[in-house]
Amino acid sequence: MQQLKARIQRDGVVLNDQVLKVDEFINHQIDPDLMVDIGREFAHLFEQSRITKVLTIESSGIAPALCAAHELGVPMVFARKKKSLTMREQLLIESVFSFTKQEENEIAVSRKYIVPGDRVLIIDDFLANGDAALGLARIVEQAGALVVGIGILIEKTFQPGRQRLEQNGYRVESLARIASLANQTIKYMDD
Amino acid sequence: MQQLKARIQRDGVVLNDQVLKVDEFINHQIDPDLMVDIGREFAHLFEQSRITKVLTIESSGIAPALCAAHELGVPMVFARKKKSLTMREQLLIESVFSFTKQEENEIAVSRKYIVPGDRVLIIDDFLANGDAALGLARIVEQAGALVVGIGILIEKTFQPGRQRLEQNGYRVESLARIASLANQTIKYMDD
Repeated sequence: MQQLKARIQRDGVVLNDQVLKVDEFINHQIDPDLMVDIGREFAHLFEQSRITKVLTIESSGIAPALCAAHELGVPMVFARKKKSLTMREQLLIESVFSFTKQEENEIAVSRKYIVPGDRVLIIDDFLANGDAALGLARIVEQAGALVVGIGILIEKTFQPGRQRLEQNGYRVESLARIASLANQTIKYMDD
Repeated sequence: MQQLKARIQRDGVVLNDQVLKVDEFINHQIDPDLMVDIGREFAHLFEQSRITKVLTIESSGIAPALCAAHELGVPMVFARKKKSLTMREQLLIESVFSFTKQEENEIAVSRKYIVPGDRVLIIDDFLANGDAALGLARIVEQAGALVVGIGILIEKTFQPGRQRLEQNGYRVESLARIASLANQTIKYMDD
């Protein structure tokens, strides 16, 4: 998606060979117009897939997942990173390792909101090692629903996330595929 | 806002006299069409206020704040509940007590995204004791910016949040004002 790639070039900050910071327009401040366009792009990519739910994980996935769900005309569900006092029903729970934060988190979704027969599009901001997306996919499958695809804003192709997701049979669509962050330079796969 | 009030009546769950659960369409599963309409309502209420930023706090504020920001044509910023490894700039930090979770959290916003001269609309899902909104307002003022107003989806008028915010001089607009949750019954202020 050219618009996202240009914005990453303009406002992304390369912290080191592994870490790209996009707090300017995705992870802290959010550009609503860009999110609407990202939602349209995902809806277009998956328009043949008869999606019934969009699933993401708090917090940075919420904006793009909401916009994709709005375009697709379906509800959006976000997984919680820990249980809150007002969430008591039976939960679908998976354990996910966050590479960025170097910690293991439980993520949880109520069994009420992903149900057998659902055709689920998973959305997340980054794809690196794939742990978050795999955790969300396991939650969908625990529920007896189908993972129709995984939509990613920014994929780091030099990390094994896509390979792990595709080995599990999932369709992965990334809007910006970064091949390298070496030398403070963002290089895309298709450059 | 009639549409929100009707939805709360239909899908809200009264846990006890103090707690209303809206996981069905706001706090866990999200209805994107409802969020777009909520965003329009806030944009309409504050259309004369020359808003430059919409500020909220992760996670449940993100969807309505994004939709309001989109309608107003301004960026949205969400406060983080704890520092992440990729947020190293100077931060605006406040301490906020969560009544629901019975714990004190630090909330943080980068100084890059709320700046002197900003005219900020604060959005949050619930107004109960007002701690989250007051923490966000202190962050705006730390930055040398102006709190133009506070937009709330669901206000519990039997708790002191509005009074505390208005004592501090803030304009508060709530889309649904709940006077009582007694006897498993949702009573609105204007019923």
